[in-house]
Amino acid sequence: MAVALIILGAGKGTRMQSNLPKVMHEIGGAPMLVHAIKAGEELEPSRIVVVAGHGADVVEAGALDWNPMTQVVLQKEQLGTAHAVAQAKDILGSFEGNAIVLYGDTPFISAQTLEAMIDARATSDVVVLGFDAEDPATYGRLVMDGDSLERIVEFKDASPQERRISLCNSGVVCADAKVLFELIEAVGNDNASGEYYLTDIVSIARQSGRSAGIVICDEEETMGVNSRAELARAEAIFQNFKRLEAFDNGVTLQAPDTVIFAHDTFIGRDTVIEPNVVFGNGVSVESGARIRAFSHLEGCHISSGAVVGPYARLRPGAELGEDVKVGNFVEIKNAVLETGAKVNHLSYVGDASIGAAANLGAGTITCNYDGVFKHHTDIGARAFIGSNTMLVAPVRVGADAMTASGSVITQDVPDADLAIARVKQDNKTGLGKRLMDKLRAAKAKRSEGK
Amino acid sequence: MAVALIILGAGKGTRMQSNLPKVMHEIGGAPMLVHAIKAGEELEPSRIVVVAGHGADVVEAGALDWNPMTQVVLQKEQLGTAHAVAQAKDILGSFEGNAIVLYGDTPFISAQTLEAMIDARATSDVVVLGFDAEDPATYGRLVMDGDSLERIVEFKDASPQERRISLCNSGVVCADAKVLFELIEAVGNDNASGEYYLTDIVSIARQSGRSAGIVICDEEETMGVNSRAELARAEAIFQNFKRLEAFDNGVTLQAPDTVIFAHDTFIGRDTVIEPNVVFGNGVSVESGARIRAFSHLEGCHISSGAVVGPYARLRPGAELGEDVKVGNFVEIKNAVLETGAKVNHLSYVGDASIGAAANLGAGTITCNYDGVFKHHTDIGARAFIGSNTMLVAPVRVGADAMTASGSVITQDVPDADLAIARVKQDNKTGLGKRLMDKLRAAKAKRSEGK
Amino acid sequence: MAVALIILGAGKGTRMQSNLPKVMHEIGGAPMLVHAIKAGEELEPSRIVVVAGHGADVVEAGALDWNPMTQVVLQKEQLGTAHAVAQAKDILGSFEGNAIVLYGDTPFISAQTLEAMIDARATSDVVVLGFDAEDPATYGRLVMDGDSLERIVEFKDASPQERRISLCNSGVVCADAKVLFELIEAVGNDNASGEYYLTDIVSIARQSGRSAGIVICDEEETMGVNSRAELARAEAIFQNFKRLEAFDNGVTLQAPDTVIFAHDTFIGRDTVIEPNVVFGNGVSVESGARIRAFSHLEGCHISSGAVVGPYARLRPGAELGEDVKVGNFVEIKNAVLETGAKVNHLSYVGDASIGAAANLGAGTITCNYDGVFKHHTDIGARAFIGSNTMLVAPVRVGADAMTASGSVITQDVPDADLAIARVKQDNKTGLGKRLMDKLRAAKAKRSEGK
Repeated sequence: MAVALIILGAGKGTRMQSNLPKVMHEIGGAPMLVHAIKAGEELEPSRIVVVAGHGADVVEAGALDWNPMTQVVLQKEQLGTAHAVAQAKDILGSFEGNAIVLYGDTPFISAQTLEAMIDARATSDVVVLGFDAEDPATYGRLVMDGDSLERIVEFKDASPQERRISLCNSGVVCADAKVLFELIEAVGNDNASGEYYLTDIVSIARQSGRSAGIVICDEEETMGVNSRAELARAEAIFQNFKRLEAFDNGVTLQAPDTVIFAHDTFIGRDTVIEPNVVFGNGVSVESGARIRAFSHLEGCHISSGAVVGPYARLRPGAELGEDVKVGNFVEIKNAVLETGAKVNHLSYVGDASIGAAANLGAGTITCNYDGVFKHHTDIGARAFIGSNTMLVAPVRVGADAMTASGSVITQDVPDADLAIARVKQDNKTGLGKRLMDKLRAAKAKRSEGK
Repeated sequence: MAVALIILGAGKGTRMQSNLPKVMHEIGGAPMLVHAIKAGEELEPSRIVVVAGHGADVVEAGALDWNPMTQVVLQKEQLGTAHAVAQAKDILGSFEGNAIVLYGDTPFISAQTLEAMIDARATSDVVVLGFDAEDPATYGRLVMDGDSLERIVEFKDASPQERRISLCNSGVVCADAKVLFELIEAVGNDNASGEYYLTDIVSIARQSGRSAGIVICDEEETMGVNSRAELARAEAIFQNFKRLEAFDNGVTLQAPDTVIFAHDTFIGRDTVIEPNVVFGNGVSVESGARIRAFSHLEGCHISSGAVVGPYARLRPGAELGEDVKVGNFVEIKNAVLETGAKVNHLSYVGDASIGAAANLGAGTITCNYDGVFKHHTDIGARAFIGSNTMLVAPVRVGADAMTASGSVITQDVPDADLAIARVKQDNKTGLGKRLMDKLRAAKAKRSEGK
Repeated sequence: MAVALIILGAGKGTRMQSNLPKVMHEIGGAPMLVHAIKAGEELEPSRIVVVAGHGADVVEAGALDWNPMTQVVLQKEQLGTAHAVAQAKDILGSFEGNAIVLYGDTPFISAQTLEAMIDARATSDVVVLGFDAEDPATYGRLVMDGDSLERIVEFKDASPQERRISLCNSGVVCADAKVLFELIEAVGNDNASGEYYLTDIVSIARQSGRSAGIVICDEEETMGVNSRAELARAEAIFQNFKRLEAFDNGVTLQAPDTVIFAHDTFIGRDTVIEPNVVFGNGVSVESGARIRAFSHLEGCHISSGAVVGPYARLRPGAELGEDVKVGNFVEIKNAVLETGAKVNHLSYVGDASIGAAANLGAGTITCNYDGVFKHHTDIGARAFIGSNTMLVAPVRVGADAMTASGSVITQDVPDADLAIARVKQDNKTGLGKRLMDKLRAAKAKRSEGK
């Protein structure tokens, strides 16, 4: 049966102390909203509706950037969760299938849990996701009647006996779309806060003879984020999950707490990640590579046997072939390095192709920017670029070619040629010491003057 | 009423295993002594007296460096806390007002706590700061008589019943200055260690018909540091405090445990601090900036919209205007960068002014040091500095001017000019490969020879 | 009496998910196998026999690399621990003295514990190392008969009463070598897994009238590593141990959790290690030095008063004299820097000698590699190397000599001379702005065309 996602993301998140809408704050480099969408995507939904409010344009851009099929509806006033879901009615009112209500600030609900909810729909009209709370505190409680969910009671309305229930409400709900909107229409706002609560649909369903059931997940999955401290805690949980995943995949992490992963990082078996490595989005590393300490990688691919860092920065579009070496204080951007190429020290390689076994000396710079446009540098296989060579793009250095150290290369270098742009050295006898002595004397004089 | 601070800092701190006096060991980049002074400063004291002993000159320099009104007295022999306080008598013997005794190795006493002690003086002649110890261990115990403090009993002298008291002595004391010195004069050293204990003043006060009371603070505030492991623990407590403060201010810290703050770091709302950032002393960052991973900042100011790093080092005197970009492997020292200026790669900019929207290419170096003196570099608005330009200071590059990549600029460049100092490139046909073949042949021959 | 070590290292370690043999996975930069050998080495053993199986050649290379006297025997099939020990019989069958059986995946057994086992041999024929388990789980239990060890019972064979025993078997065993092999010969494989268990020797010994005793160590010492998560945990334990050792030695670690040590790191008193420093193997730092943040050191020696970093990379063979300064984005390899030499910014110094008080400007590069051979650079005392000087090795710059900024130095510079290789600067009037205007116009035209 078809599935539609309704993801609530209209809240301001006052406690975040931020101009950014709460659901756009990131975990593992992806907005929390995207984490919620990602989990739902595993159900192959026909529709994804995001309910936005505060910063709706930013939320819409973030949702579409991740998944262009997302539809964003505006909740102008925040009148409660039922009211929020009701905003999706124009789009989903006649949807044939299940609707699942998720939350953009609850990033850890797993796809397995959502699948279990879909399955549970076989026996219940409304399925609510619950969890056994270690400290139930002020969560809403799930009042059960055998295997059936009788109602959800808010903490403040709960009797002392009900407060002893540890089974709590996550807020995630699954029901037939049409039924969901029918139930929501019956929700009122006759309560202390004057809000329309989605939780009310359970008792409404029961009153109308419909059945309600539950699915239980780990409490960690239901973690919501309301402050920056909670965001940091969620990030820590996420990072820990990625580290365990890396261990299971046979990755060596010498100091796991110092390695920061993104939501989509992939690392192959027997790759070693040294301490203090940061992965931005879009990085894949094949097996048997080594990422040395203090490296920073984003949007790049590393092949087997490659060694990166220490202090290497790989930016989007960096593609490292097998056994490539990128060393310290080196930045690579939008550049393909073929098998065995080496850029070991203090270099900037941007918008370039580097042939197999080419060697770029210390201080090599591709001058790719003329102030307005970016240009390409092409270096052939086995080329040897002398230290401190400036490659003024667009320019090509041929295979087996060489450049002399300190040269500014403005014209193409044919295969096998040596390009040189250098002045003869002149040693001025005794002048070095004379100059320094003069400066020192000036300084001494100044000090006297004081 | 006027307030005087007496801060004890004479101890050697044998367990620190250090040549540096204990109170000069740092937390958040400031000596522990300074933390103690800072808390006291909020009371706007008329006098600050530091009692120094081991390494007194280093302690004096540290105290004066922070607050020039500090007066340092020497405690030649360390004969106990009462003896230490007595050294302040020459300065404070006729002081009209309250004296508070603080400790240079107890950095976390809060100003609020000290204010509460001053307030408590309204009802007690002597006010002692106590805390409820989670594990009272061998701390001195506060023996109460209703709301009054009867006496302070050292652990070793305490009866089994007294040892069950969890209210412990922090050592911090507040009293009228004249009363304090009068009481101290009565303290004897007829005890096992032959030391004069400040704690004895409570029973002496009571015997002379004076009243004693207490103020209670969190145990964490009273933490003393006696070893490097304890110093590290104190540093961790301090860092945690600064991280929570950042969260409250609306700062995003992706991996808070990897961000190191100094005692005076200020970060604005919605600024993002990526993992592995170290703040030295004297850094302020406005709201909406981004400090990327692996950056190191000291004594600098960052404006809104600026992006720093990854791998940027900002040293004292770096002033970044709005939307300035400082990229990887870039060092900035004593330099003002106007709005929108960019220094993106592998550069050293020291003793310089960089105009708005100027762009410094990769490998730009301000050659500011001639071996004896430092000189200034001035770059105009919208100037375009080609990669690997050496700017031999003192030198000026005008607005809208340009330098060719690889040029050494020794003379001023007028506005709008292009400065070039470069040799024509010469391609020697086939010479690159011939040279490399010859080297390889030589190597092969050598290997054979082995 | 003579001692022989038998170290078992044949296991595949399936749960490691690795092609590397389990015992070759590293802690603190040394294979776990080496940690086991190191502990045993303190007994000054006459023989060290490693029993290898999976990846035996890699294990052999690792063992010999650490201690060339190691002998590696092959266990072709893994038929149990007794079978593994039996492989050492060819070498140790007639050995006169004690044999100790250790495990290559149990890196934390201390030398003190092993010495206690040797001592315990005075009263027992077979000595087993036990530990009081916090959670005995499925460990084998040591069933005692007064001070004597009666037998070792596997968890699955243990009675409910035996399962309540918390004294567990570490697997480490010490016995007279000949006795050990005699006992092992009697071990059968008539059990569920069909393996020959070393633990069986205890009951065999008792049956033959021999005595068995135990030595007890901390549980942490007996930690075995079977997965990458456990490896990471072991690494964390090791790092914590090294941090405490540093505190005891009077080292300041501002953020100890961010400093990574190697197994052989040595740091002197009052040296300050800032946050985020990584020590590879073979580093010694004298007292009173400072290692600034984000530095990476391997195989180097740092003298008193030297300041390294931030962002300094010292590679093997870097020798820093007193008061040397190596600054940011600087790489030093196989180079001696004499007292007070400075390399402060963006430099590569490899295969070089740098004289006392020499100053290398920003962007200095020793061009030590010609594509095939490495060459040496020699810089004299007090030499001043201008920014962005290329030193094309082999080359010598004399004492008190100077090089002009941006020069490529291909010939020796005599003492006191100034070497210059530079073109005169030419300012093309208005050309900078004209070029940029033209580029901007081209861009504007392109945008229109879209």
